[in-house]
Amino acid sequence: MTNPTITERGPEDAKTSGPAAEQARREEELIQRVLDSFAQTPDARLQELMNSLVRHLHSFIRDVRLTEGEWDAAIQFLTAVGQITDDRRQEFVLLSDVLGASMQVIGVNNPADGEATESTVFGPFFVEDAPEIRKGEDISGGAAGQPSWVEGTVRNTRGEPIPDARIEVWEADEDGFYDVQYDDQRVAGRAFLRSDADGAYAFWGLTPTPYPIPHDGPVGQLLEATKRSPVRASHLHFMVTAPGCRRLITHIFVEGDPQLDVGDSVFGVKDSLIRRFEEQQSGTPTPDGRDLGDRTWTRTRFDIILADADA
Amino acid sequence: MTNPTITERGPEDAKTSGPAAEQARREEELIQRVLDSFAQTPDARLQELMNSLVRHLHSFIRDVRLTEGEWDAAIQFLTAVGQITDDRRQEFVLLSDVLGASMQVIGVNNPADGEATESTVFGPFFVEDAPEIRKGEDISGGAAGQPSWVEGTVRNTRGEPIPDARIEVWEADEDGFYDVQYDDQRVAGRAFLRSDADGAYAFWGLTPTPYPIPHDGPVGQLLEATKRSPVRASHLHFMVTAPGCRRLITHIFVEGDPQLDVGDSVFGVKDSLIRRFEEQQSGTPTPDGRDLGDRTWTRTRFDIILADADA
Repeated sequence: MTNPTITERGPEDAKTSGPAAEQARREEELIQRVLDSFAQTPDARLQELMNSLVRHLHSFIRDVRLTEGEWDAAIQFLTAVGQITDDRRQEFVLLSDVLGASMQVIGVNNPADGEATESTVFGPFFVEDAPEIRKGEDISGGAAGQPSWVEGTVRNTRGEPIPDARIEVWEADEDGFYDVQYDDQRVAGRAFLRSDADGAYAFWGLTPTPYPIPHDGPVGQLLEATKRSPVRASHLHFMVTAPGCRRLITHIFVEGDPQLDVGDSVFGVKDSLIRRFEEQQSGTPTPDGRDLGDRTWTRTRFDIILADADA
Repeated sequence: MTNPTITERGPEDAKTSGPAAEQARREEELIQRVLDSFAQTPDARLQELMNSLVRHLHSFIRDVRLTEGEWDAAIQFLTAVGQITDDRRQEFVLLSDVLGASMQVIGVNNPADGEATESTVFGPFFVEDAPEIRKGEDISGGAAGQPSWVEGTVRNTRGEPIPDARIEVWEADEDGFYDVQYDDQRVAGRAFLRSDADGAYAFWGLTPTPYPIPHDGPVGQLLEATKRSPVRASHLHFMVTAPGCRRLITHIFVEGDPQLDVGDSVFGVKDSLIRRFEEQQSGTPTPDGRDLGDRTWTRTRFDIILADADA
């Protein structure tokens, strides 16, 4: 008791011997063996990914002391996610979305760059080969909903207009369905157009409305078990590409949508992406002279700023 | 410069402003929003699991700066794992196995307890309702392979024999296939028996041989890409249950098997589970007088110690 180092070592001794220490040693040794198994991976990046994945996966299991029943439930959950997934339903993307993983990946790959428009989730409903429209034309393709005039410009972070940017837009109808969810093969609520010589663009779409993500599958069961809303805040998708610029995947959201307070089910909302959709009474002259009869409509403005490709 | 706290704060200032700081702020804010979304989960344990999962998943994405292409590859990989999984093929379990996750879960739930026999992976090939055999009978059911006499005792950590313990055993044939991988519905290479009044057990099985885990699917592609062997070290499965004792799921491995040096593809090997299978020349009298004709055979001993149920 005269040697202070003995007293100081007391607590450490408790950790480095006995069943708890033996248990920790076994758990750490296993992790090292798994990491070692990836030592011959030819692709250095793949090795880096596997090493980090293994460390986090094992830390998760150790941190929560995952039970065998919980592991089994996780296997069954992933199996169910796999079973419901097909060419038109991508439950793994939904799962990534509701865990915020999709949004984190988007954020990591689209770092903050001054005034550049923020990115948000891609979602599972984009389709290649949407029809091209000219400035001012209608993307709805007959989909039901309140007409909305959307206009803006595409510029770079130095304020210079970007002509000929490719602007893909897609959205759900007023019942919350994208065309790929229809029973037939109609194309509706999606198109692409190009910015003009001044970087300007405009089109008729539909005023966005809230809708649930598909929640009749295992991801829906997860949301139910955690008392989370499956509803996405009302939004209109954009994907904007131009040479020399970083591709922008984003939405605009609708100011005043109550779901903005409840929370977007896939964490896509950013304050900078919320736009006012101004309600227009029926009979209000439209920007392009289109006759909407006795229908009301809205209009909004979304000026897009693209980061440089190397930003 | 006279105030030392200013100098000390210098490096922190660099981190708390500028685009990198704004980016870190966005990434952390997203994690907090995802965690907040689980705040109303009624089941406290589910909430704990989701919170830890979210933290580790997002840390993984941030640590490796996961690209969108890599995220997409991960989604496609999981989709392929789901597609190949059916009633007889469980690729998610295989994936868990080759990442060492299954083994870590086993370890967490079967903590070190003195001399208690160590656990290892369960694997995907166990089947309920295996036939019962009596002491000394043959589990092979006609499966091809070198006969092996396996004997031992079941005891608790105080050295007391455990009578009537239920001992499930299962193994692959000499070609590396379990009966569930056969085209027909034969039951072979699996059975259960009970320890006798002295805690003793014995049965005829097959000398274990190495075999690959199913590697014609996405998990096999992962092993190929990382230059890992799909082969499991030769082993014989045990699951032992008795009232008042912790269920033991384990294997015994074969001393001298070259795969022990290469590495077991699912990290199941523990030194304490390696057993000598003694080669017996043809004509050597068998323990129970069984006539094996001109065949060689092996014999081994595996004395099992069960932890208490509350250990």
